Amino acid sequence: MKIDLNCDMGESFGTYTLGMDEAIIASISSANIACGFHAGDPQVMGRTVKLAVDHGIAIGAHPGFPDLMGFGRRNMACSDEEIEAYLIYQIGALQAFCTAHGARLRHVKPHGALYNLAVGNESLVRSIARAIARIDTSLFMVALAGGKAERMAAIAHEEGIPTLFEAFPDRAYTAEGTLVARRLPGAVIHDAEEAAARAVRMAVEGVVLAVDGTVVPLAVHTLCVHGDNPNGVTLAATIRARLEAAGIEVRPRTEPLKRL
Amino acid sequence: MKIDLNCDMGESFGTYTLGMDEAIIASISSANIACGFHAGDPQVMGRTVKLAVDHGIAIGAHPGFPDLMGFGRRNMACSDEEIEAYLIYQIGALQAFCTAHGARLRHVKPHGALYNLAVGNESLVRSIARAIARIDTSLFMVALAGGKAERMAAIAHEEGIPTLFEAFPDRAYTAEGTLVARRLPGAVIHDAEEAAARAVRMAVEGVVLAVDGTVVPLAVHTLCVHGDNPNGVTLAATIRARLEAAGIEVRPRTEPLKRL
Amino acid sequence: MKIDLNCDMGESFGTYTLGMDEAIIASISSANIACGFHAGDPQVMGRTVKLAVDHGIAIGAHPGFPDLMGFGRRNMACSDEEIEAYLIYQIGALQAFCTAHGARLRHVKPHGALYNLAVGNESLVRSIARAIARIDTSLFMVALAGGKAERMAAIAHEEGIPTLFEAFPDRAYTAEGTLVARRLPGAVIHDAEEAAARAVRMAVEGVVLAVDGTVVPLAVHTLCVHGDNPNGVTLAATIRARLEAAGIEVRPRTEPLKRL
Amino acid sequence: MKIDLNCDMGESFGTYTLGMDEAIIASISSANIACGFHAGDPQVMGRTVKLAVDHGIAIGAHPGFPDLMGFGRRNMACSDEEIEAYLIYQIGALQAFCTAHGARLRHVKPHGALYNLAVGNESLVRSIARAIARIDTSLFMVALAGGKAERMAAIAHEEGIPTLFEAFPDRAYTAEGTLVARRLPGAVIHDAEEAAARAVRMAVEGVVLAVDGTVVPLAVHTLCVHGDNPNGVTLAATIRARLEAAGIEVRPRTEPLKRL
Repeated sequence: MKIDLNCDMGESFGTYTLGMDEAIIASISSANIACGFHAGDPQVMGRTVKLAVDHGIAIGAHPGFPDLMGFGRRNMACSDEEIEAYLIYQIGALQAFCTAHGARLRHVKPHGALYNLAVGNESLVRSIARAIARIDTSLFMVALAGGKAERMAAIAHEEGIPTLFEAFPDRAYTAEGTLVARRLPGAVIHDAEEAAARAVRMAVEGVVLAVDGTVVPLAVHTLCVHGDNPNGVTLAATIRARLEAAGIEVRPRTEPLKRL
Repeated sequence: MKIDLNCDMGESFGTYTLGMDEAIIASISSANIACGFHAGDPQVMGRTVKLAVDHGIAIGAHPGFPDLMGFGRRNMACSDEEIEAYLIYQIGALQAFCTAHGARLRHVKPHGALYNLAVGNESLVRSIARAIARIDTSLFMVALAGGKAERMAAIAHEEGIPTLFEAFPDRAYTAEGTLVARRLPGAVIHDAEEAAARAVRMAVEGVVLAVDGTVVPLAVHTLCVHGDNPNGVTLAATIRARLEAAGIEVRPRTEPLKRL
Repeated sequence: MKIDLNCDMGESFGTYTLGMDEAIIASISSANIACGFHAGDPQVMGRTVKLAVDHGIAIGAHPGFPDLMGFGRRNMACSDEEIEAYLIYQIGALQAFCTAHGARLRHVKPHGALYNLAVGNESLVRSIARAIARIDTSLFMVALAGGKAERMAAIAHEEGIPTLFEAFPDRAYTAEGTLVARRLPGAVIHDAEEAAARAVRMAVEGVVLAVDGTVVPLAVHTLCVHGDNPNGVTLAATIRARLEAAGIEVRPRTEPLKRL
Repeated sequence: MKIDLNCDMGESFGTYTLGMDEAIIASISSANIACGFHAGDPQVMGRTVKLAVDHGIAIGAHPGFPDLMGFGRRNMACSDEEIEAYLIYQIGALQAFCTAHGARLRHVKPHGALYNLAVGNESLVRSIARAIARIDTSLFMVALAGGKAERMAAIAHEEGIPTLFEAFPDRAYTAEGTLVARRLPGAVIHDAEEAAARAVRMAVEGVVLAVDGTVVPLAVHTLCVHGDNPNGVTLAATIRARLEAAGIEVRPRTEPLKRL
């Protein structure tokens, strides 16, 4: 049994440092690297790709809206054509740093508002998938597990690329398999052991315990952890330790995906 | 006999239009496409790559300083590491649009202040060449013909890439084979037939008539024309017509270069 | 009788030219000058303020979303605090150029998506009005005439500033006094004489002929014309000529406004 | 006897935090606030002005080159007209936040490469001074004490504004009264007591002990401290305590300056 642990990285910019990339990298198996639109800059991208290569983990592009001031977290009404062009641009830029370091890009995970808007917006999902497919049909698209995941994967499949489903061990889920909104009480799980237990259950059983006590099936290929604060780093290390203790190998999925 | 005619393209940005790309493209054999730092945006890049593909001309990346407000024409004191990262980023972004359109990037021509600063700055030339080489050692670097050209090509060769020498048929040259500064009288040749005659002589004889009346040897692989104004478009069409009338084929150099 | 004719100006950026500012300025009585977020740059702002001062017309700030690539035409989900800060920043920057040229800022007209979103979004209107009021309570806020105009003015009044209602003589109106969406046939009136006749009726009678043939009351202080194309310039000149021929003085409103 | 203690503040941007503004503010008497070009954003500017107002300290604009990625530390070859426009823009933006918070801008201190380039570049000094003078002739320009300071002040005086001379208690000085370059050993003084002793001597005697052991006269109005790291905060607190213990009042100079 195996599961991927991913983390957003390379979010520093110029003189500004964000994220504890060097601390979290020992715990994860794939890095989503910002591409300069919502965070990251060319030097940071190069350094982060090198860091990932040095640690032998998989590399993904983490493209976002062109909104550095808002960190890509604000919805922007971009057309499908704009989204497609913005993704080709950002993925290509990161891909070149991979080439420069002898690595190969493996996946693309949209960032922030772009990631959230894609859930349930079929036209947007298609634009994202098409951009990826036009660059390399062996790249995985990462999409939120549960709810709309199967439909998003179907669209990506039509465009020619495989999809990885992502879940959040430190986030509460509804009985419908969707994330509890961050503003609601209990939305974020701060206890490392509790998050780790949820991670193990996601990986082993493919389920999550919802806030109403029901056990919800959740097909998951990759678990997201956070390296932007010391608690996140501890939480990631605990998750990895508990996964390995449970006999689960932490590693990126690289072989062709069969539909779950 | 053959020669390449190149033009900077894709310099529009958002709502702003710059350059008569559709008018000049019939006259040229390779396009240097802006990459979003000094000009161009992802949609413009995609459209311009498509335009070049539709016309069967060669595609080059045209990276510049991160200075949209100054159109990349202002010197910026960037470190070698910054330059290398900025080039990898921009070239990679354009390369992805080439891939998306089934095309292959052929060359890299630095823009504006970056191009000018490279003449005679060995450390900068090395950074540029290294960035290119780290992405694809079959890419050509474009450098100003005459003066420092051989030394620049030697550095690029050490880094693993070939160099194309570029000349300007509508610019006056000194007896040393360098460009007469733009601010001096007579620096720019506005007469299309005169520019065309100079282009033919560059292509056939490998020389240019300097302002002091001497005939200066000038090894040239590609001639630069301008599409940012109607006169430039006329001038380019005239140059092409006169080159072809002289039996010179206008086409990009794609085979491995022997040192001149 | 009098009316103001306004036009968006100063939308060039760096090497990019947009708008025929020098051609349209003879026809208008107030200029809305872009402030560097969606268009304009510091040099363009200085030159445009000087142009307005030289022609003795009123000056307004034309702030927009921080989205140069989208020309401020894309909705962005900014918080009220962000909007307020963005407006204070942009208005202050333009105000300094007014001071530098011995002029005084008179009004603030939000641009593009920000202007459109404000219609019917009370929280956004309040943020805009508050930003203006915190800088200078003698500044006018410009809002779309008809429909929500009275409610927007009431909010601005609560925040301490007066409002000017703006109408578009070259746009079709519904029977409810709202603009016909641009994508619908007949939404834009291209005939200069027809637009001028509508402008006169707006100024003299305070009404507009709607697409269904009804005559709709429309309280208007300022009419918007466009200088981004030759037809717009002609249309503006025609409107001004017909207004003056009808005995209407074209000039900005500067005295304290009584509620209409 | 009195002296001003100033610190660069408001250098955070979007999601990125830089500087310990809340920690250092108790030690200083004036704040130089970034204006959005090299650092800072509109929300950060508003919050930082409020912080300064709440602590009753003087507020200055801290404008820089338009180079967020390089934090304004890279030389850019801007024309005098560009510099003047960039300063008017940035100062105006900050001034509006001062107005919004009922405060008054007191001084302008160029940032980074712009500050350093101004030392000895008379044309650049004149552009900076002219921009300030065009906005408000009661604003002080801040310039590096020693060496070129008198000449810079003379130029500013010609343009109509007064100058404040700034010294760095934690930096080594040459016998000529210039800063020892950062890359040289001993250029930065890390010991808080030593820096504080130098600060007292600067304030009381108007001299600095140079690296060669000579005592160099140094006319100083304001001392710069740093809040971007914990050591800087401690150093600032120590300097303030030692200044006050020596009977020197720490406060901004607000009265008209007599030439030293």
